[in-house]
Amino acid sequence: MTIAKVIGSIISTRKHPALIGNKFLMVETLACIDAAKERFIAIDTVGAGVGEIVLITRGSSSRCSIDNMNAPIDAAIVGIVDDENHIM
Amino acid sequence: MTIAKVIGSIISTRKHPALIGNKFLMVETLACIDAAKERFIAIDTVGAGVGEIVLITRGSSSRCSIDNMNAPIDAAIVGIVDDENHIM
Amino acid sequence: MTIAKVIGSIISTRKHPALIGNKFLMVETLACIDAAKERFIAIDTVGAGVGEIVLITRGSSSRCSIDNMNAPIDAAIVGIVDDENHIM
Amino acid sequence: MTIAKVIGSIISTRKHPALIGNKFLMVETLACIDAAKERFIAIDTVGAGVGEIVLITRGSSSRCSIDNMNAPIDAAIVGIVDDENHIM
Amino acid sequence: MTIAKVIGSIISTRKHPALIGNKFLMVETLACIDAAKERFIAIDTVGAGVGEIVLITRGSSSRCSIDNMNAPIDAAIVGIVDDENHIM
Repeated sequence: MTIAKVIGSIISTRKHPALIGNKFLMVETLACIDAAKERFIAIDTVGAGVGEIVLITRGSSSRCSIDNMNAPIDAAIVGIVDDENHIM
Repeated sequence: MTIAKVIGSIISTRKHPALIGNKFLMVETLACIDAAKERFIAIDTVGAGVGEIVLITRGSSSRCSIDNMNAPIDAAIVGIVDDENHIM
Repeated sequence: MTIAKVIGSIISTRKHPALIGNKFLMVETLACIDAAKERFIAIDTVGAGVGEIVLITRGSSSRCSIDNMNAPIDAAIVGIVDDENHIM
Repeated sequence: MTIAKVIGSIISTRKHPALIGNKFLMVETLACIDAAKERFIAIDTVGAGVGEIVLITRGSSSRCSIDNMNAPIDAAIVGIVDDENHIM
Repeated sequence: MTIAKVIGSIISTRKHPALIGNKFLMVETLACIDAAKERFIAIDTVGAGVGEIVLITRGSSSRCSIDNMNAPIDAAIVGIVDDENHIM
């Protein structure tokens, strides 16, 4: 898993039916984890909001985090980190 | 998932039978997501066209986006982003 | 998927039983797709030969391209690109 | 698999239900394996502690290491390396 | 798949039960394949030894190479290359 900050959201009206009802958040990996600060889009499963530090699972395992295990997703926010100052 | 612009298409007459009927689009990740602007080929599932900004799922999860879940694909366009100017 | 040129082949006499009968080709991604021109080995499923431009699926989805879906492979050539000059 | 040193832990009170009861450790790949010293979060399955050198499996296979094979994880510590001085 | 040289081995006495009985080899990708010469750990399935040039499958497909398809592994040596001088 990786740790990232939620930095925005994405709206997609025309999307695959299996994705309806999901929230798409843009995240950026923390510099202490990844100097390159990678950005990508993740489905939210824990009620995360912009500015929060979150735990993210990528790849096919991310499908285990939502009700529809056949949804075409490859990244999901699966936790909110309690104390970001504690990280490293 | 990642966000990319559709920049072209690919024609392959001699291809695996499970891929027949699919549209292969070349996409390039947006600079605001990925400074390296990676390019790859994705199956279209939402009627995307050249110039549009799209949401893409990669890896085995992309197979969930098409009728034939045994098709050998590793990337699919699963949404069209509503307002690209809103991104970051 | 990615687009690459077939640049050679690999012979492995001592190999996993599930791989017997497959052709192992070395491919190199096209510069217009990937400036780093990555090289790797892919199973051929469409009769590709050295010098041809091919469409490649990577990861576990590549297993969908051959008869034995339990073969330990992570890349397969699944199409031959019709007109390489048309790419980009 | 890769080899990394355990360098810390992460607490997440608000997390996906399938992750409850797991220990999240931050790891950093060894320089002899990966000059870039990548950092990420892995579930512990062998009782690893900070400072230990561990064997890590990534991707969907990491789910095979815990009781709940539907937990959304993408990295797991699956072994403790006996003699780190022996490595390379 | 990729091609690498076997450069060492790893001993892990405390490991996940599903990994017992497997041989963990450290491999380094060949320069002609990958200028960065990546190193990682792979399970041996073909009796490979230090110094040999081997074919490696990564990701979840590597699990297809061993008897226990639920073992948490993400890389397996699945062939020994016949003539390394022939490679490129």
